[in-house]
Amino acid sequence: MEWLPLEMIAFDADDTLWENERYYQEGRQLFEALLAKYPLSGDLAALLDATEMRNLPVYGYGVPGFAFSMIETAIEATHGMVSSRDIQALVDLSKQMLTAEMALFAQAEETVARLSAVYPLMLITKGDLRHQLSKLERSGLKGYFQHVEVVQDKNSQIYADILTRHHLAAKRFLMVGNSLRSDILPVVALGGRAIYVPNSLTWSHEQVEPPETAWGRYYQVARLGEVPGLIEQLSTETS
Amino acid sequence: MEWLPLEMIAFDADDTLWENERYYQEGRQLFEALLAKYPLSGDLAALLDATEMRNLPVYGYGVPGFAFSMIETAIEATHGMVSSRDIQALVDLSKQMLTAEMALFAQAEETVARLSAVYPLMLITKGDLRHQLSKLERSGLKGYFQHVEVVQDKNSQIYADILTRHHLAAKRFLMVGNSLRSDILPVVALGGRAIYVPNSLTWSHEQVEPPETAWGRYYQVARLGEVPGLIEQLSTETS
Repeated sequence: MEWLPLEMIAFDADDTLWENERYYQEGRQLFEALLAKYPLSGDLAALLDATEMRNLPVYGYGVPGFAFSMIETAIEATHGMVSSRDIQALVDLSKQMLTAEMALFAQAEETVARLSAVYPLMLITKGDLRHQLSKLERSGLKGYFQHVEVVQDKNSQIYADILTRHHLAAKRFLMVGNSLRSDILPVVALGGRAIYVPNSLTWSHEQVEPPETAWGRYYQVARLGEVPGLIEQLSTETS
Repeated sequence: MEWLPLEMIAFDADDTLWENERYYQEGRQLFEALLAKYPLSGDLAALLDATEMRNLPVYGYGVPGFAFSMIETAIEATHGMVSSRDIQALVDLSKQMLTAEMALFAQAEETVARLSAVYPLMLITKGDLRHQLSKLERSGLKGYFQHVEVVQDKNSQIYADILTRHHLAAKRFLMVGNSLRSDILPVVALGGRAIYVPNSLTWSHEQVEPPETAWGRYYQVARLGEVPGLIEQLSTETS
């Protein structure tokens, strides 16, 4: 596959540049601990998953939908016995998650700094506009990105719209992210480039097996810090 | 004040093109009716207002923050006596509000259709990205707008950023909206044009008295349907 000079490098944000899923997993643990004192009907984790999936079309991705789903699941699983004090604890958890300290991954800043010296960078992130922009501000990385796209979902159509809007050819666009489903496969399907940086914590909803047609069409590195070197190597080999 | 030909007309969405505040007022009524059976401490409406204002920096504008504030206020005002059934009713209300039928104001479509035949149109709306885009889709008006900006707040800095991004001169930009605070005064302060279309239902948070410096620097009409005629008249008189 011919390697053309890149005109834009885009990064996913949550779980690619900074911790995110960890807060949800900690939230789930708090949720289970809060409800441990009640007699429960059914498997709490499975009930919460099902409620989240049912609520996704209404609330979308993000903390508010997660918190409403916890509240609903708490009421359902305890047959309405859950105390208002415990419901308040779930509301408080949503506030803590929305204002939590940013935890950047090792070499996140170094990586975007190195690349931004050579390429225009774009952030493409899914979720609530306000919360995503707030995290970008607090991350200290905002200045490295020329464009920020907060999208409702990440599929090939949405990536195609972004490419059109920014007058970019897919072959000259590279996406870096931790989710095969959201960051890698839809970009590869358009003929774009992608570097997969797996994260040990990935939401089950994001986990997919790559189809055979995607084999060999994206790159994979173990750590974010390896991304600039890989791009440099690919650019040099083929120029 | 010299009238230059317009290069862009922007519309606010909520309570300018379609009903919005009505759903919040109905929500408040349901909230008060739900809690009427409990002995309450303090004035419920005032408590809810205070909770909303306190939560605004965390949740931002929109239905989720409103619903979390109702849940917190219900717990606080009933000293924790509120039943989980009533809390579930507040969660259900948030879902109803997020998926409610769109109610367009009279002549909304005619107004944007007439203007879009002559000018590029932009929608500038405050709130949750997902919910705002979902309402625009459902409104049937999406095709009339060349650009959509969903912003976290509406102040002069944010309007200035939008003008810069779209290479627009303030004097050639006109904003139409129902809120002096959010749609009219910040645009006038930049030297832009604005048409104020008051709405009988306006959230108290949006109500301000215009400062003297703004007097005579924006136009006012009673109904949305008068906007195209006013713009035509202003353009003809001065060309």
